[in-house]
Amino acid sequence: MKCLIIAAGRGSRLSTESKPKPLVPLLGIPLIERVIRSAHEAGIDDFYVVTGYEAESIQTFLKNLSHHIKVNIKTVFNNQWANTENGVSVLKANDYLKEPFLLLMSDHLFDPAIVRELLAQPLGNNEINLGVDTNITSSFIDLEDVTRVKTESGKIQNIGKELTDYNGFDTGIFKCSPAIFDALQNSIKENDDTTLSGGIRILTSENRANAFEIDNYFWIDVDDPFAFKKAEKALLASLRDKPNDGPISKYLNRPISVKISRQLVKFKISPNQISIISFLLSSLAAGLFIPSDYLYLLAGGIIAQFASIIDGCDGEVARLKFQTSKYGGWFDAILDRYADAFMLFGLTLHAFNNSAENIILWIGFMAIIGSFMLSYTADKYDSLMRERINKSFRLRLGRDVRVFLIFLGAIFNQVFGVLILLAVVMNVETIRRIIICRNHE
Amino acid sequence: MKCLIIAAGRGSRLSTESKPKPLVPLLGIPLIERVIRSAHEAGIDDFYVVTGYEAESIQTFLKNLSHHIKVNIKTVFNNQWANTENGVSVLKANDYLKEPFLLLMSDHLFDPAIVRELLAQPLGNNEINLGVDTNITSSFIDLEDVTRVKTESGKIQNIGKELTDYNGFDTGIFKCSPAIFDALQNSIKENDDTTLSGGIRILTSENRANAFEIDNYFWIDVDDPFAFKKAEKALLASLRDKPNDGPISKYLNRPISVKISRQLVKFKISPNQISIISFLLSSLAAGLFIPSDYLYLLAGGIIAQFASIIDGCDGEVARLKFQTSKYGGWFDAILDRYADAFMLFGLTLHAFNNSAENIILWIGFMAIIGSFMLSYTADKYDSLMRERINKSFRLRLGRDVRVFLIFLGAIFNQVFGVLILLAVVMNVETIRRIIICRNHE
Repeated sequence: MKCLIIAAGRGSRLSTESKPKPLVPLLGIPLIERVIRSAHEAGIDDFYVVTGYEAESIQTFLKNLSHHIKVNIKTVFNNQWANTENGVSVLKANDYLKEPFLLLMSDHLFDPAIVRELLAQPLGNNEINLGVDTNITSSFIDLEDVTRVKTESGKIQNIGKELTDYNGFDTGIFKCSPAIFDALQNSIKENDDTTLSGGIRILTSENRANAFEIDNYFWIDVDDPFAFKKAEKALLASLRDKPNDGPISKYLNRPISVKISRQLVKFKISPNQISIISFLLSSLAAGLFIPSDYLYLLAGGIIAQFASIIDGCDGEVARLKFQTSKYGGWFDAILDRYADAFMLFGLTLHAFNNSAENIILWIGFMAIIGSFMLSYTADKYDSLMRERINKSFRLRLGRDVRVFLIFLGAIFNQVFGVLILLAVVMNVETIRRIIICRNHE
Repeated sequence: MKCLIIAAGRGSRLSTESKPKPLVPLLGIPLIERVIRSAHEAGIDDFYVVTGYEAESIQTFLKNLSHHIKVNIKTVFNNQWANTENGVSVLKANDYLKEPFLLLMSDHLFDPAIVRELLAQPLGNNEINLGVDTNITSSFIDLEDVTRVKTESGKIQNIGKELTDYNGFDTGIFKCSPAIFDALQNSIKENDDTTLSGGIRILTSENRANAFEIDNYFWIDVDDPFAFKKAEKALLASLRDKPNDGPISKYLNRPISVKISRQLVKFKISPNQISIISFLLSSLAAGLFIPSDYLYLLAGGIIAQFASIIDGCDGEVARLKFQTSKYGGWFDAILDRYADAFMLFGLTLHAFNNSAENIILWIGFMAIIGSFMLSYTADKYDSLMRERINKSFRLRLGRDVRVFLIFLGAIFNQVFGVLILLAVVMNVETIRRIIICRNHE
C-alpha cells in the first residue's frame, strides 16, 4: 500500500533558521524520517511526500533517505503551500493515488502498531478510516491545538478544532480511499475550506468517515517545543520497560544508560561500536583485576560496572535510531561472553597472585564455565522450550546481576568469595534449568 | 486418519517359540512397534490391529504400547486366520472403518516419509491408492516373495506374485476408501480368493486402484531371516549419513559407535543415560590429564576419544528406538560443553604442573573460551542466520575434531602445543564467523 505524507507547512514553532520542521532531529532522527521509518516498520515501502516550505532541502534529504533505507520516496511540490491549508497538499497527490492509501502527517509520531492495525482494518468503498484516540485525558494531547472528533457507533459525526461536544482526537493517521480527493474538492468549492478536516466533514455528512479507535498506543503531534520535549521523554521512557531486564538493569543501569543514550544519538556512533566500547571497557577492567593491588581492583570494579551500564546503550541507541538488527544482538551477546570470561579470569589471576593455591584456579574455572552455561542454557531454553513452558528463565541471574556481584567483590576486596559464589550459584542454576526442562519434557 | 494393521498370520519363517513374528525385536524394537511408531511419526494416532496367531501375546503387548506412547490401539481378532489369507483379516475391521484409512502390514518397515506423502495425496471416491516401488532393481526386494504390480498412467492394471509383465512392487502401504471391503467380499464370493491382492484386482478391473510412486524412500518386507538382516543393515546404515557429521565423526567415530549402538539397543538403557556415561568418561579423562605422568595422560587421551565415540551412541540409540527428543539433544549439548571444559582444564593443569608459568593458564583459558564460543556461535548462527545464508558453519571444527586433537596431544605428549592450537584456531574461527555473519547481514 502507498503512503502519502504531508510536509508542506511552515511549522513556524519548530523550524529553525537552518532546518524546516520535518528535518528537525528528535533524539537524533529528523521528524519526517521517524514517520517514514515507523510506517516502514509497519510494512509500507512506497511513499509520496508533499513538500512546500523549504521544499528543496526536504527533497534532498528524502532522496538520500530513500537510497539509504531502500524504500521508494517520491516528492510532490505544492506551489500553493503558503496561502492554503493542508487539504490542498493532499489534493496535489491526486494523480498518484488511485487505490486506497495511508495518509500521515510529517509531524505526528506514532507507534507502528497503530498503522499495522489500521492497515488490517477493512475499508468500505469510497470511505475513509481515521485513527481516533478516545483517551481524551491523555497527557500527550495539547488541547489548544488538537483536532477534536465526535464519533458514534464507529462513524465520525463531526470533526474540527473548535468542537465542544467531542469524544476523541484526530491522530492524523488515515486509511483513505481516493474518494477523499473529491471530498476535498467539494469542500473547497462549496465551503471555501482548504483544510483536510473540511474534506473529512464532507464525508461525515454521507456517513463515509469511520473512526478507528487506537487503544493505548503512543502517538503525539509534535507541534511546538513543549510537545517536542514530551515526545523525547516518551521515547526515552519506552526504552526502560524491557520485560527481560533484571533488577540491577531496571533500577540501576537502565536509568543511567538512557541518559547516556540520549546524548549518544546526537553522534554518528553505531550500536555495534557501542558494543565494542563496552567490551573494551570490560577488558580493561579484567586487566586491572590481575595485579594484587587493591586500588587497581577497585578501579577495575568501577569500570566493569560502568561497562555494564554502557552495554545497555547499544540496544537503546539502536531502537531510537531504527537500527535494531538480529546481527547486532548476536554480536553484542558474543562480546558479552568474552567480556564475562575475561573479567572472571582476571579475578581468578588476582586471587591466585595473592595466594598460589590450585583451589583458586578450580573455583575460577567453575565460575567461568558457570557463566557460559547460564547463557548457553538460556539461549537453548528459549529456542527449544518456549513453546512448552510459558515463562522464561532469562530474568534470573542475568548479566546485570553477575557484573554487579563482580563490582561488589572488587569494592569490598572479596574476590575469592565472589568467585565461589558465582561458581556455585551459576552451576546450580544451570542444573536447575536442566531439571526443570526435563520435567516439562 | 485411522490406520489398520494386519498382524494375524503365522509368520513361520521368523516367529520363534517364545514370540510371534510381530513381536520379534529388530534392533531392540518389535516389528509391529516399528510399524506403529513410523506411522505415528507420520501423524497417525488411531490404530486398529487385526490379530490371529498368538493373538493374546500381541494384544497384551499392544495394550502396553498404547499406554506407553499414548496412541489409541484397538485389536480385532480374526478367528479364521489359520485357514484364510490376509484379505479376510482386512474384512474383520469392516465395522470400524467407515472413512478412508491407512492400511499397513505388520512386517513391512518403511520410512515415515512414504506415509506422510501418501496421506497428502488426494483419494478418489471408492478408490484406493497403493504405494508402489518402481525401482525394480532394488536390493531390498526378495523377488521370490514380493507382490508385483503392473501400472499404466498411475492406474494399477494388474497385481499378483506371479506377474511376468510388471513395472513395480506392492509396498503393502495403502490409503483405502471403505470400498475395499466390498471388493474383498466380491473377490471371495466370485473368485474364492481370500487374498488382499484378490480384492485389489476387483478394483483394478474398474480402474479404481491408483499407484502412488514412492520414489527412493526405504521400505522392506521383513519376511525371512535374510530380509531381517538386510533391514537391520539398512537401519544401521541410515545412522551413518548425518549431514552435520564432521570428518572424524564420519570416518572414525560413527563406524564404531554404530556397532556399539547395535549392541546397546538390546538393553534398557536410555539415550540420556548414554549421554551421561559419555560425560563421565570425559570427566575421568580430564582427571587423568592432571598429573604430570605421561601414562595417565595417555590413558586420559584414549578414554577421551572413546567418550567422543560413545557420544554418538545416544543419538543413534534414540533414532533406532524412536526416542529422539529436543530435550535429549539439549541435554547432550550441555554435558558436551561441561565435558569439553573439564578436559581442557585438565590439560591446562597438566601443563601448569610441569612448568608453573602463567602463560599456560592464559593459553588454557583462551582454549576453554574458544571451545565455548564455537558452540555458542554455531547455535546462535543456526537460529538467527539460517534464513539468510544457505549453508551451515557447524561442520568446521566440530566437537569430533576438537576431541581428536586432544587425543593426539595426549598420545604425543604435546599438551601445551594442542592448547595453543585450540586456543588460536577456535577463537579465530569465532571471529571469522562474526565477520561472515556481518557481511551477510
